[in-house]
Amino acid sequence: MRTLVLGGCGFIGSHVVDHLVAAGHSVRVFDRYPERYRLPVGGVEYCFGDFRDTMALIEALVDVEMVFHLVSATFPGTAELDPQADVRDNILATLGLLEAMVKFGVRRLIYLSSGGTVYGIPDVVPTAESHALRPVNSYGIVKATIENYILLYHRSRGLQPVIIRPSNPYGTRQGHVGVQGVITTFLNRVIRGEPIEVWGDGSVVRDYLFVDDLAKLCVIAAQSGKVGVYNGGSGQGTSIRDVIAHIEHVTGQTLNPVFKPARPVDVPRSILDMNLVRSEFGWLPETSLEDGINQSWIWLKSIQSATGELPPNSWTDSRLV
Amino acid sequence: MRTLVLGGCGFIGSHVVDHLVAAGHSVRVFDRYPERYRLPVGGVEYCFGDFRDTMALIEALVDVEMVFHLVSATFPGTAELDPQADVRDNILATLGLLEAMVKFGVRRLIYLSSGGTVYGIPDVVPTAESHALRPVNSYGIVKATIENYILLYHRSRGLQPVIIRPSNPYGTRQGHVGVQGVITTFLNRVIRGEPIEVWGDGSVVRDYLFVDDLAKLCVIAAQSGKVGVYNGGSGQGTSIRDVIAHIEHVTGQTLNPVFKPARPVDVPRSILDMNLVRSEFGWLPETSLEDGINQSWIWLKSIQSATGELPPNSWTDSRLV
Repeated sequence: MRTLVLGGCGFIGSHVVDHLVAAGHSVRVFDRYPERYRLPVGGVEYCFGDFRDTMALIEALVDVEMVFHLVSATFPGTAELDPQADVRDNILATLGLLEAMVKFGVRRLIYLSSGGTVYGIPDVVPTAESHALRPVNSYGIVKATIENYILLYHRSRGLQPVIIRPSNPYGTRQGHVGVQGVITTFLNRVIRGEPIEVWGDGSVVRDYLFVDDLAKLCVIAAQSGKVGVYNGGSGQGTSIRDVIAHIEHVTGQTLNPVFKPARPVDVPRSILDMNLVRSEFGWLPETSLEDGINQSWIWLKSIQSATGELPPNSWTDSRLV
Repeated sequence: MRTLVLGGCGFIGSHVVDHLVAAGHSVRVFDRYPERYRLPVGGVEYCFGDFRDTMALIEALVDVEMVFHLVSATFPGTAELDPQADVRDNILATLGLLEAMVKFGVRRLIYLSSGGTVYGIPDVVPTAESHALRPVNSYGIVKATIENYILLYHRSRGLQPVIIRPSNPYGTRQGHVGVQGVITTFLNRVIRGEPIEVWGDGSVVRDYLFVDDLAKLCVIAAQSGKVGVYNGGSGQGTSIRDVIAHIEHVTGQTLNPVFKPARPVDVPRSILDMNLVRSEFGWLPETSLEDGINQSWIWLKSIQSATGELPPNSWTDSRLV
C-alpha cells in the first residue's frame, strides 16, 4: 500500500518505516527534519514540513492510502510547561489532519496514543483497553482527547482508525538526555560517566517495550484492516531499580543513582494488559528487556564512536515522539 | 464573597447571578453582551468582553475570590460543525482562564460541564459521577478535556474547583429556536403556531432540570468549599413523548410532532444519578417538570406580549450556555 508516516524520522517512526519497507509497502515520510542518526532509507520518499501546516499535510496526502500519525509536539514530562501549546500543537493540528484525510478520501489511520498516560492512575494493573480514561497530566489529557476525536471521525465521517497505546518504548534511535526514555537516558549517562538521577525511590513500575516490537505491532495492526483501540506493551512490569540492575549487568558497571523527589505527574504503576492484542493479532514481543537494553547499549556506543564525540544533545529536538 | 460570573448574562448564568445576589454575595458579570430578556440586575457590576481575550479576563479577575465559568462557545448540537473552533474557543480559552487564576491567586472555580454528553452512551443509567468518560460528540469531548485540565490545575497548581455536570437544564431565559433546550423550543413553536420536530421516534430519554434548581445547586456547591465533580440533574428520566404530553397539558393544545431521522450525535438515554449530590449537599430539585414547563410557558408568553412581537431569534446568539 501507499503509506504516509507522519513523524517518520523520529524514534518510533523510523522503525515503523523499516517494517513498512520490509513488508513491501511504498513509504512517504513527513517530518520536520531528516533522521538524526542515519542516512535516508533507500526507496523512501521524504517530505519536510511542519505538522501544524495543513497545506503541507494535504500535499503529503496525495495518492496515499494509509497514514501513520506518530507526531507529538510534546514529551510526557514537559507537556505541563505550556498546556495551551500542547493543545494547539497536538489537538488542533491533528484535527487539521483528520479534516484533510476526510476531504481527500484517505480513510486508514494508525495513531500512536499513550498507554502510559491515558489511563491516569489505573484501578487495575495490568490495565486493559476498556479501562476508563482519567489522565492526570497534560500529555495524557491531549492523547485521550485526540483518541476521542479520532473515534468521532470514525463514527460520523468514515475514518478507519487503529489507535495503539504504547507503554514505555525504548531502544535504538531514541533521545537519551533526559526527556524521553529512562533506559537510553541512563545508558547515555553511563557512557558519559555521569551519575544517574531517579525521580522518587525507584519503586515506580513501567511496562518497557523494545521499539522494534512496537513498530512491528503498528504495521501488523495497520495491515489487519481492523478498527479499534489496542494497548502496545509487553504486559510485564519492571521497577526502576530492576532496570538499573539490568543496565549494570549489560554494561558491567555499577550505577550509584541519585534519588530525587517524586514528580506529581508520574503514575506510580503502569503495566498494560496485552490479552486483546494477543488474541486479535497473534502478536507477542520478541525482544527480552535484557536483550533490548543490550541492543540499545551497542547502538549508543556505536554512534559515539562514529561521530568521535559524545552523542548529540537531543533536548532541543522536539520532533522525536 | 466577591464573585465573578463568566457568562453571567446567559441562560444559566443569569439565574446563578440571582442566587448569588440573594445570598448576599458581591457579583461581577463578564459576558459578551447584556442580558437579552431583562434589564441589568441592581447591584451587579457588568463587564463586557470576549472570553478568549485573556487580558480582558485578567481585568475582570481583579479582587475576585470565586469564579463561575459558565461560558460555552458552542451548543451540543452544533459543536460538530467545526471541531477546531470548538477546541480553540473552549479548551484554549479556558486554559487562559486557569493560567490567569493561578497567576493572580484566585483559587475557587465553579465550572459547568455537561452531564448529558461527557459519559457518552452510558453503561448504566442513572449514571454516577464515577462512570467512565467516553464522550461521543465534540461538545462532550471538549467538556471532558476541560474537566481533566481543571483537575490537573487542582493537583499541581492549587486550584480549588467544583465541577457540575448538568443534565438537560430548561426554563426561563433559555434560547428557544432549536439549538438549545427542547422544552422551550417546543413551547415557542406552540406560541408561533408552528409544528414541532422530533429527531428520532420520541423515545429518547433525558433528565430535565429546571434552571432555577440548577443555579441553586451551583451556589450551594460553591459555598460548600468542597472540591469535586458532581452531577446536576433531577435523577428522573423523561422521554420526548412524555415531554410533549406535559406540554399539551400545560398549554391546552394538541401537538402533532413531525418525526425526523435520529441524529448520530444523540445519546439514547441520559439520566444522572444524584445520590452523591444529595448526600454531600442535601440538595433536591424543588420544581416538578410540569411546574417548570408551566413557568417557562408563562415566561415565553410574557416576553412575547412585552415586545409586541414574536420572541427574538436567538440562533445567532452564541453567548448562551
